[in-house]
Amino acid sequence: MNMKRAQRGPTNNQRDTARVEAFSDGVFAIAITLLVLNLRVPGGRSQENLWTLLWNQWSMFLGYITSFIVLGIIWLNHHHMFTYIHKTDRGLLIWNTFALMFVAFIPYPTALVAQYIGTENGKIAVVIYSATLLIVTILYNFLWWYATAGHRLVEQEIDTHVLRTITRSYLLGVPLYSLSLVVALINVEASLLMYIMIAILYLLFAGPLPTPSLPLLTKKRETERAEKR
Amino acid sequence: MNMKRAQRGPTNNQRDTARVEAFSDGVFAIAITLLVLNLRVPGGRSQENLWTLLWNQWSMFLGYITSFIVLGIIWLNHHHMFTYIHKTDRGLLIWNTFALMFVAFIPYPTALVAQYIGTENGKIAVVIYSATLLIVTILYNFLWWYATAGHRLVEQEIDTHVLRTITRSYLLGVPLYSLSLVVALINVEASLLMYIMIAILYLLFAGPLPTPSLPLLTKKRETERAEKR
Amino acid sequence: MNMKRAQRGPTNNQRDTARVEAFSDGVFAIAITLLVLNLRVPGGRSQENLWTLLWNQWSMFLGYITSFIVLGIIWLNHHHMFTYIHKTDRGLLIWNTFALMFVAFIPYPTALVAQYIGTENGKIAVVIYSATLLIVTILYNFLWWYATAGHRLVEQEIDTHVLRTITRSYLLGVPLYSLSLVVALINVEASLLMYIMIAILYLLFAGPLPTPSLPLLTKKRETERAEKR
Amino acid sequence: MNMKRAQRGPTNNQRDTARVEAFSDGVFAIAITLLVLNLRVPGGRSQENLWTLLWNQWSMFLGYITSFIVLGIIWLNHHHMFTYIHKTDRGLLIWNTFALMFVAFIPYPTALVAQYIGTENGKIAVVIYSATLLIVTILYNFLWWYATAGHRLVEQEIDTHVLRTITRSYLLGVPLYSLSLVVALINVEASLLMYIMIAILYLLFAGPLPTPSLPLLTKKRETERAEKR
Repeated sequence: MNMKRAQRGPTNNQRDTARVEAFSDGVFAIAITLLVLNLRVPGGRSQENLWTLLWNQWSMFLGYITSFIVLGIIWLNHHHMFTYIHKTDRGLLIWNTFALMFVAFIPYPTALVAQYIGTENGKIAVVIYSATLLIVTILYNFLWWYATAGHRLVEQEIDTHVLRTITRSYLLGVPLYSLSLVVALINVEASLLMYIMIAILYLLFAGPLPTPSLPLLTKKRETERAEKR
Repeated sequence: MNMKRAQRGPTNNQRDTARVEAFSDGVFAIAITLLVLNLRVPGGRSQENLWTLLWNQWSMFLGYITSFIVLGIIWLNHHHMFTYIHKTDRGLLIWNTFALMFVAFIPYPTALVAQYIGTENGKIAVVIYSATLLIVTILYNFLWWYATAGHRLVEQEIDTHVLRTITRSYLLGVPLYSLSLVVALINVEASLLMYIMIAILYLLFAGPLPTPSLPLLTKKRETERAEKR
Repeated sequence: MNMKRAQRGPTNNQRDTARVEAFSDGVFAIAITLLVLNLRVPGGRSQENLWTLLWNQWSMFLGYITSFIVLGIIWLNHHHMFTYIHKTDRGLLIWNTFALMFVAFIPYPTALVAQYIGTENGKIAVVIYSATLLIVTILYNFLWWYATAGHRLVEQEIDTHVLRTITRSYLLGVPLYSLSLVVALINVEASLLMYIMIAILYLLFAGPLPTPSLPLLTKKRETERAEKR
Repeated sequence: MNMKRAQRGPTNNQRDTARVEAFSDGVFAIAITLLVLNLRVPGGRSQENLWTLLWNQWSMFLGYITSFIVLGIIWLNHHHMFTYIHKTDRGLLIWNTFALMFVAFIPYPTALVAQYIGTENGKIAVVIYSATLLIVTILYNFLWWYATAGHRLVEQEIDTHVLRTITRSYLLGVPLYSLSLVVALINVEASLLMYIMIAILYLLFAGPLPTPSLPLLTKKRETERAEKR
């Protein structure tokens, strides 16, 4: 009887989760690494001092750092989400691929911001950038809702309270990114500052994920096992 | 006796499937993410409004979206196919690599379409794009036939009826993509519209894969296990 | 007693092989997919017929196809090699990384050949291309020798006869690629033709790898298991 | 009782390590393979001899080789580190992502060095290159300290002596890369020479990792298992 879990382990459904995670990780890893291709080497073997040349391209580096951190956080959330999801269905695969379409798109608005910041078109560039991040956030919230509604694709044993805490922490991204989109319409620099602040807030206060929730889950399992023996 | 499956689990053959899936996922993930490199930032710090500049590049974005969806669907099919394939041989590896050659090629005809649509060369570009997708479809149909003929590389326990349903759903792609190639010769816009319609059709009607077939498979296994105990 | 293999399964050593395979697969998958970036869209919205424009770039497409097939075969060999290797050590990791340095380099000589074929520099370009492939072949032969010498990093149970057959089939690459390097010095077109012939020969005659050897291995294991019970 | 380890095998925590390794491997593999995009094909179908043209770009090739070796060594260390780390927490994921930001950045300073070496800006380029490597080294030392402090994220059974040996060998990178940064301020060529020497030293003397430590670990386990039976 004890063997059941081990046997069920390598079923097709689990392999599904593994592959969708691997494919998503691939897209995340490539999108995040392609950001470096946006960084242009200052043209020609110019006489000017290299520090000056690079300083003039500060927006390019700011774009690299901001997008790397944002993509990193999205990956952390995706990673965290799939700690709980242990089954896939066609809908999950489709919506995940759809979300990845916007994830893989992020290097482009990053390049737009780096190119146009400080010009009249800067505002439009930052709005496109913000809109992309907002769409990604909304799609991942939808994905989480899709997977957890009725506990269909998450572990049955999981605590509903834990799921709700996570849902709330993900939902927080929607108003925050919406706000920074609105701020971009008024002041571009303030909007970029907001992204860095959101990142710091996330890292400090979004709660020690996934450590605090997993023990709960593990504890439940241990108890079950003890009962089974 | 019960242990047998667990022991057979990490055999060399299974590891083979894992690696060919990982390699294919890598190629899919990179090809799909490289599409963003086709998107050019409008040149110079132009005075013109950025919305206008981007609007003029609409074909570039249409290419990104269409190819991302098409590549996503091909990946979903590949993924689904390898839910059933659980052994590899030299032939499978070779044909899979051959199919990947055309998968990895997709960003190029995408760039051709984005560049030449609306010009006299637009028709040729869309024909090349359609031909590439048709070749990929034919190769994956061949791969599926190769793996399932005589049940050689799929699970022995699998229902023949399930396999036939999948074969039919894959085969559907051949006439659809052939038709859109022919349509491209007459009207380019209609052809592109067809791709979006094929995608919607696929997502709605291709059947809830892989959910409906796996329970069948799982049920068979459960029964077997029960008998063995 | 029966459990021992299962327990040993996820030891650190096995995880090592998994990660070195994953990293190598990553480099192979990226190098093979980056080849598409060598394909340039014919410049401007030219009036000339697109077929003519693409025809003029035939060497570019020949380069893509040849390098994709060559990289695919190298991956197949790498894959096959690691079916037998089940332990890693520092030396193996270092030599594998060193070999990957030349694998990841292949897109560059490919671009050189595409650019310079048909000009006076064409011979030099093909020589550099051939030399790169020769170095990769030599390094992988060395890697295989390193892993199998004294059976250190391969399964102890494996048949020495099987190992020798593989060693011979890998060694064959060295004279073949050396010959095509020499041929390149005399006639560039003949050299390129040789690559395609080597590929066809490999696919037809290199023996049905890995199918014929694995049954041997598996049979041995089955017997052992039977004895242990 | 014996089954416990097998059951615990695929827990969420272990899957975490697997995914963070896969994501990191992805970034390493892409960053290392993107280096080839820095290699430019000599312009136009020039009349000049190709050997001369390529010789003039020697700094480009030196950059490729140095960065490939450096990235390879960082990957080897990362790989080795995660042989011991078997749990993840939020902090580890964040710091690892932060370190990857600088790993993925390496192709850029490599391009700077290739472009500016031999000019007045060469010194600045090499300083930026050295600083990037130093930051990566410091971050990975921090990561290792974070994981091992109080044995929190490494195997409990592991020998403290082994951990200390590894800590020392990682720490060595900090003064070495600091020194080569200082040397770069005085003599650029001497600094580049130092990187190659550090690599050779590492490969020869950094100790046969991970072979010597793993037997210790494995032996401990074997003993424990024997006791449990």
